[in-house]
Amino acid sequence: MHYIKDFKWKQGMTVSEFVESLGQVGYQSIELAKAAGAVVRMKKAGAKIFLSFTSNMVTSGLRGFFAQIIRLGLADIIVTTVGGIEEDIMKASGEQFKIGSFQADDVELHEKGVNRVGNIFVSNESYMKFEDMIIPMLSKLYDKKKRWAPSEMFREIGLLLEEQGKANGGDYENSILYQAAKRDVPVFCPAITDGSFGFHLYLFQQKHKDFMVDVVDDFKNILFTTTPDEAKGVIALGGSISKHHAILATLLNGGAEYAVYLTTASQASGSMSGATTREAKSWGKIKDDADAATVIGDVSITFPLVMIRAIETLKEEGFLQKDSSA
Amino acid sequence: MHYIKDFKWKQGMTVSEFVESLGQVGYQSIELAKAAGAVVRMKKAGAKIFLSFTSNMVTSGLRGFFAQIIRLGLADIIVTTVGGIEEDIMKASGEQFKIGSFQADDVELHEKGVNRVGNIFVSNESYMKFEDMIIPMLSKLYDKKKRWAPSEMFREIGLLLEEQGKANGGDYENSILYQAAKRDVPVFCPAITDGSFGFHLYLFQQKHKDFMVDVVDDFKNILFTTTPDEAKGVIALGGSISKHHAILATLLNGGAEYAVYLTTASQASGSMSGATTREAKSWGKIKDDADAATVIGDVSITFPLVMIRAIETLKEEGFLQKDSSA
Amino acid sequence: MHYIKDFKWKQGMTVSEFVESLGQVGYQSIELAKAAGAVVRMKKAGAKIFLSFTSNMVTSGLRGFFAQIIRLGLADIIVTTVGGIEEDIMKASGEQFKIGSFQADDVELHEKGVNRVGNIFVSNESYMKFEDMIIPMLSKLYDKKKRWAPSEMFREIGLLLEEQGKANGGDYENSILYQAAKRDVPVFCPAITDGSFGFHLYLFQQKHKDFMVDVVDDFKNILFTTTPDEAKGVIALGGSISKHHAILATLLNGGAEYAVYLTTASQASGSMSGATTREAKSWGKIKDDADAATVIGDVSITFPLVMIRAIETLKEEGFLQKDSSA
Amino acid sequence: MHYIKDFKWKQGMTVSEFVESLGQVGYQSIELAKAAGAVVRMKKAGAKIFLSFTSNMVTSGLRGFFAQIIRLGLADIIVTTVGGIEEDIMKASGEQFKIGSFQADDVELHEKGVNRVGNIFVSNESYMKFEDMIIPMLSKLYDKKKRWAPSEMFREIGLLLEEQGKANGGDYENSILYQAAKRDVPVFCPAITDGSFGFHLYLFQQKHKDFMVDVVDDFKNILFTTTPDEAKGVIALGGSISKHHAILATLLNGGAEYAVYLTTASQASGSMSGATTREAKSWGKIKDDADAATVIGDVSITFPLVMIRAIETLKEEGFLQKDSSA
Repeated sequence: MHYIKDFKWKQGMTVSEFVESLGQVGYQSIELAKAAGAVVRMKKAGAKIFLSFTSNMVTSGLRGFFAQIIRLGLADIIVTTVGGIEEDIMKASGEQFKIGSFQADDVELHEKGVNRVGNIFVSNESYMKFEDMIIPMLSKLYDKKKRWAPSEMFREIGLLLEEQGKANGGDYENSILYQAAKRDVPVFCPAITDGSFGFHLYLFQQKHKDFMVDVVDDFKNILFTTTPDEAKGVIALGGSISKHHAILATLLNGGAEYAVYLTTASQASGSMSGATTREAKSWGKIKDDADAATVIGDVSITFPLVMIRAIETLKEEGFLQKDSSA
Repeated sequence: MHYIKDFKWKQGMTVSEFVESLGQVGYQSIELAKAAGAVVRMKKAGAKIFLSFTSNMVTSGLRGFFAQIIRLGLADIIVTTVGGIEEDIMKASGEQFKIGSFQADDVELHEKGVNRVGNIFVSNESYMKFEDMIIPMLSKLYDKKKRWAPSEMFREIGLLLEEQGKANGGDYENSILYQAAKRDVPVFCPAITDGSFGFHLYLFQQKHKDFMVDVVDDFKNILFTTTPDEAKGVIALGGSISKHHAILATLLNGGAEYAVYLTTASQASGSMSGATTREAKSWGKIKDDADAATVIGDVSITFPLVMIRAIETLKEEGFLQKDSSA
Repeated sequence: MHYIKDFKWKQGMTVSEFVESLGQVGYQSIELAKAAGAVVRMKKAGAKIFLSFTSNMVTSGLRGFFAQIIRLGLADIIVTTVGGIEEDIMKASGEQFKIGSFQADDVELHEKGVNRVGNIFVSNESYMKFEDMIIPMLSKLYDKKKRWAPSEMFREIGLLLEEQGKANGGDYENSILYQAAKRDVPVFCPAITDGSFGFHLYLFQQKHKDFMVDVVDDFKNILFTTTPDEAKGVIALGGSISKHHAILATLLNGGAEYAVYLTTASQASGSMSGATTREAKSWGKIKDDADAATVIGDVSITFPLVMIRAIETLKEEGFLQKDSSA
Repeated sequence: MHYIKDFKWKQGMTVSEFVESLGQVGYQSIELAKAAGAVVRMKKAGAKIFLSFTSNMVTSGLRGFFAQIIRLGLADIIVTTVGGIEEDIMKASGEQFKIGSFQADDVELHEKGVNRVGNIFVSNESYMKFEDMIIPMLSKLYDKKKRWAPSEMFREIGLLLEEQGKANGGDYENSILYQAAKRDVPVFCPAITDGSFGFHLYLFQQKHKDFMVDVVDDFKNILFTTTPDEAKGVIALGGSISKHHAILATLLNGGAEYAVYLTTASQASGSMSGATTREAKSWGKIKDDADAATVIGDVSITFPLVMIRAIETLKEEGFLQKDSSA
């Protein structure tokens, strides 16, 4: 049995020391430290790690952190929604989003061509930039073959981002798609048409009737990213189909041994975003005796806390990849 | 300016009278009455109505109410996640879900083959029944043609449910897919592979390589369900891609004139489920001067309250379809 | 074992029928129906019923409903925060609050002397009216005796509201204090100084040094409202000291047999507002085998639903007081 | 206009660097960094700082951090609920709370004499220890005088804790009451009877009829902790009467120039815990142009993050008290 311990600030306290201390504080801070521990253990066990997130987290500055986590070898499979893919591409072309306000005048923003996501502003220009980039990319893909699974497309786009970034500048090093492509981490997006990406796929298909996006093929692809014999871990941020698809893939492979859910939602309404790791056991999505933690809170705060603690612990113990220096 | 008015119970008070009274009570009750008003006005204006919901709402007893709403002409386009489609099919075959508990022992449930969704229990048998139904259905579809947009598949399945229901019994009258098919209401699901349905599509495609699910075609289909000239309304329950896809379709058609969002999420984390009708204006998803309301609360309670008030008001004023008697 | 049943609207559906149907719908609707059942059973068992609420619920139109519930004999002990007492008095003098908006410009409101509580506007005039009323009342109390327990003061004020209402008009029939005084229902407020009321007590005491508010005496009073041998029920709305004080009183009397918590808060942060009926068992606040339900949602919607269902059921079964006709 | 910036982990990152980076991430992380800035500015402006918290935060390991914050001169006035006072006293006597689980079996806990607060366990022994300590303390107070304002009592108890701690051991250095007494920081608790403390006051008063707790006197005391001419800041954690009482005191002194609210609640239900700094402006609780931030999230995580960033910034700039080394 462990005891609550009075937290005290120490000068120059690191994030890792901080999260460790929180493990004896109470409420969600205890769960946060548990989650960091579960991430450490899933990595040390050599589990295949599924990382799922929704597009609003890519809109935020977590995008570069996701890319870094892939680079550090802490995510083996990515599942996300298509808005995140779009914004990763925009940002790779140099577009920047602004810090706004939850209380902004939305009618005024609309007149100025500014789209609000909580307290972040995304301009129409960024969407136009996405358009400029995606149209020639689709042509290049089509030239290679006619039928694509989404994860294959994303891999190809990741490599094109590097190419273009090297040619014209652009922030490809922080790109999720680039880092994933470079490290053979597949990126899945079960609703590829639900965004501007879908609109451009539609326009392209109008001109090229034999161009096909084969989502069923990607079901096979995610299914075979792992096996029932392999240890599996899930780090699910928020809810939506990205969380559901990741745990569906683990369910069909016998369930995950490790699971960390970070979300703002409670279980009270039966939603996917609020579904707990406990509920997941009834489905076999995670194993009965899984090492699991659910942390309630804003992912923009909780996710970096959990991961920094895990990264520094793993680094100390020699479990991180060599080139993890930056 | 309107005043808060002390609420009083009256014997035999109807739901419609109740919601009307709540309009002068405070907090979410005011927003609830506003939402009911917006639904009444969108219908009276002849707007095309997009209704979006997530699968957990189909798991609940709202499934029959969704079917009824379609029958009453209060939803012209449906957008949902694939779990809802699966469960609609299971229930149409006579499967029933049980009332459970949020505190159930999930390991014990797992041993018994029971899957928990909040306080609802779904047995493995129900999923097997889905399997029994979907496999021959996919064969029938394949016999007709090789390339299907998801909304076309759902329409066909809806008609097959009637056929089978008439032959073998089964609750097809309360089926969303059946009522939608019968009334030419398209059902969209931008992530058709994210569930058991996806697994069976994958197995089927393994045997029939020329079988294709064309999600890009469905982007075109939802885009052309309405036009910029038509008045449009959105009733979005919860979040996820179902909400996003519905408002994307209205955005690309100039924005909705009417919008009602019912959700448990707040805007604080920039999620789709918490995104407000106000934020939607910055995007042009809904018009600057739209008639809009956001109600925070469990949809299993708020949605029937809003709709019953709207239905009875519309019926009184002669705006409901003839055969709306039950 | 009970089954989920597809909900269907029926024309002219009453609130009571509606809540009954919700019992087979799912998520919070199931809990809502359970809560209504627990209220019915606590009344039929002759339990002493503690009803606790926070002041924002009195700001809303629930104030008249609280008064009605007292009149119907469904609350034997009231616990609240002092803002609710203040507003009950303002409203009894004829003051009205306005329906506002969550998005109102608060700086502009401040300039106009309007105070916002969510989407309700309370004018400075209402506070001045409270001042006009409370000052002479304190004098009358002081003339009677020098040392008052808060619950004694509230009882006296309730009777004065009737007197003044009869003389000058004013909405005393919907007053919580009046109905409570008339029916010998004690009203407790463990933080009587936390509001405008406290300011006037302070001013009064400055002039009358021997005027004493004896909060310790009210601890005795609430302790002796019931006994360990009596059945006890708690209906707690929201959190704060009103909820805590009610369950403290039942704890010290052996725990409640019946408990209904209605709140928007989850248990995740260890707060009183989010504390569940399950947690309460560890404390002995409610009995191990208590008939208990927790409903997550806005009280302005859930409380009238629960109570109307309970009232109509009790009336049918002959368990309501004679004069409950209005 | 500032830009979102991709977050990157750097080895050995301190909490202060981390919170600074979060200021460019998005959603609640932006608000968190804003809150830290507001705390820095309120201290640099020499504002009187009101710190309010609810008792569950004292149950957690934040208790020692509150004591440290008082010692560092970052809180001039404390407002809390009485449970926090009780637990501060228990812990000062050496009692420890255990790390438990939200899913614990509450009936089993009850049998073992363990009380649950979220995922923290408090044993009945701790309450007995409180009893052992408070009874002689009340006698000592009574020997000094008969009529006590709560804040006077807490000051006296704080000094007694030091005395006893030095004699018998006990964790008085981390005690809120001790550090507050030592630094002339008044501790207010507008509902002193709402807990075990109230029960012992009642028992004591039964034997000593002339013993009086004068809550009205404490209204005067908090009113005169500051003046309209002084700059004022509020750091309010959670809701309840502690938050309300702190902002009532600033309101009556012309409103606060600085305000930081940390809470899990949203504004949707008009509750005090969810009331925003924006709403506070309509009341004049905070000034129209106040430097204000509201952060939604679990206080056990957000509060130390905000304060550590503020403390290290203030220390660097030479604005912290000399003996702040630990």
